[in-house]
Amino acid sequence: MKKSEFSFIDDIAKTFGALPHNGFEPIGDDCTVLDMGADALVISTDMLVEDVHFLRGASTAEEVGYKSLMVNLSDVAAMGATPTAVLLSLSLSEATQGEWVEGFMRGFYEGCKSYGVALVGGDTTASRDKVCINVVAIGRAPKANIKRRSAAKVGDVVCVTGRLGISSKGLVDIMFGDLDTAAAKAHRRAQARIVEGRWLGECEAVHAMMDVSDGVASDIKHIMEQSGVGAEIELTKIPADYDIRYATTGGEDYELLLTVAAERFDEVAEALYRDTGTTLTAIGVITADRELRWLENGVPSELELRGFTHF
Amino acid sequence: MKKSEFSFIDDIAKTFGALPHNGFEPIGDDCTVLDMGADALVISTDMLVEDVHFLRGASTAEEVGYKSLMVNLSDVAAMGATPTAVLLSLSLSEATQGEWVEGFMRGFYEGCKSYGVALVGGDTTASRDKVCINVVAIGRAPKANIKRRSAAKVGDVVCVTGRLGISSKGLVDIMFGDLDTAAAKAHRRAQARIVEGRWLGECEAVHAMMDVSDGVASDIKHIMEQSGVGAEIELTKIPADYDIRYATTGGEDYELLLTVAAERFDEVAEALYRDTGTTLTAIGVITADRELRWLENGVPSELELRGFTHF
Repeated sequence: MKKSEFSFIDDIAKTFGALPHNGFEPIGDDCTVLDMGADALVISTDMLVEDVHFLRGASTAEEVGYKSLMVNLSDVAAMGATPTAVLLSLSLSEATQGEWVEGFMRGFYEGCKSYGVALVGGDTTASRDKVCINVVAIGRAPKANIKRRSAAKVGDVVCVTGRLGISSKGLVDIMFGDLDTAAAKAHRRAQARIVEGRWLGECEAVHAMMDVSDGVASDIKHIMEQSGVGAEIELTKIPADYDIRYATTGGEDYELLLTVAAERFDEVAEALYRDTGTTLTAIGVITADRELRWLENGVPSELELRGFTHF
Repeated sequence: MKKSEFSFIDDIAKTFGALPHNGFEPIGDDCTVLDMGADALVISTDMLVEDVHFLRGASTAEEVGYKSLMVNLSDVAAMGATPTAVLLSLSLSEATQGEWVEGFMRGFYEGCKSYGVALVGGDTTASRDKVCINVVAIGRAPKANIKRRSAAKVGDVVCVTGRLGISSKGLVDIMFGDLDTAAAKAHRRAQARIVEGRWLGECEAVHAMMDVSDGVASDIKHIMEQSGVGAEIELTKIPADYDIRYATTGGEDYELLLTVAAERFDEVAEALYRDTGTTLTAIGVITADRELRWLENGVPSELELRGFTHF
């Protein structure tokens, strides 16, 4: 993009922010939130474009269908909510209107079935050239469970679920033609932290939460800005299996990035692992000074980390 | 599409219909409906693709922005609800990432402002080639006001708001290079029946309702199928300014097609015109036999009417 995505979105958020909100929370979290009484509804939308977000030569139609669903359910999980329904729009090139879209729908269906998500609307149309996919994910949770980027508190432990950098390492493998490495398979078969998102939503000690879609180095800044805080991240603590740049600035991990009351962290991590089998790793701490500092064994790191840009 | 849109959607609706609905009404109306207590929420999504739904050479960016919003708000109006919020996804080619998208957002904003609609989420990404736009429209109404395609009753008057065929006549004008005829301008500047939709939602005598997006000849069949009824349409009564094929099988009019209790029709039409300035024209009657019959001055018409296909 000629303007970076962030500045363009900032402009839009400012202009439209002056209009009535009609009960919806304004742009700024993974999902918008609508008060329904005891429960809240959360709604998010994401677009995937052929040759930008996926290559038809490198992923099967089923994988693209499954992934299109998962990246959207990840936004619902990041709010501490349970996904309940999706809407799907597809624009299909001539070459994808037969077998390809049937495979796509099988992958999409498999994910919906696994997590009990209803398909409640959509649109299909032709495209002159590339496939374009848009998914809307809707979730629901008791109002008190909803987690926002704005809720981080000074002294909170910064932590992540699972391990980071696998998906972007997989993307690089695919770019080099290695389609079948473990990382490449993980990239093609994205998996959202749906069970963990709901679990963490129910946990009062969890303050701010979001999903890791552009890399921790970029995503933590959203929590900092929305919460008016800073953060100190210890690079050696990041749960990474490959080059640290994948784990910090690589995109599409769809793990959860959250802040937890420090005195409760050990207990939360232990219980999450016991209930879901997923690890929660402390990687830093929330600070008061609105700066992001990278440490390496406790001393400031020289590494320049910018965050992943999709385009 | 290799399969027609309808059969593909039927397959999807059947497969996914077996999954839990989580409180949402299944595919079949202009919007899905979620029970919120006294109110219902309605949600719809529509995708617009460059060179399929609009030509950048024939419409200004502002017009495309305004139209992208209106075609979605039309789905909310068709349910008898008031649009409250939208989510917008854009994939932008290199050539559209500067001035074009700014113009698009101005048009989109103008529509949001006019109708008090909030922009509550979205996604922007690059595209390798064509622009792709997805809008999600959300509306709200007292539960009793929601109008469905399934509510037509035998004996109801079939009627439409406004006049039909202008948009498709305009599209043909544009195809011949006449960009500035009244019809071409109407095509480029779609207008949803937002005020009328809410008004008709509040009117108990209105039974089934939907918007006219593919032409009455095609759209009336949805009401027939969902309601288990037939219809008899008198061609000479259709409010048309051009060739009757535009008014019956042309797309993108975004007028409302509805059925009204026969004994109340005159009163409803008069009150709608008084309150909104919009005409309501009786064009036929709902019958019991599940057939669609076209009459011309009361005798069966020879005209073959198929409905508009977008691709």
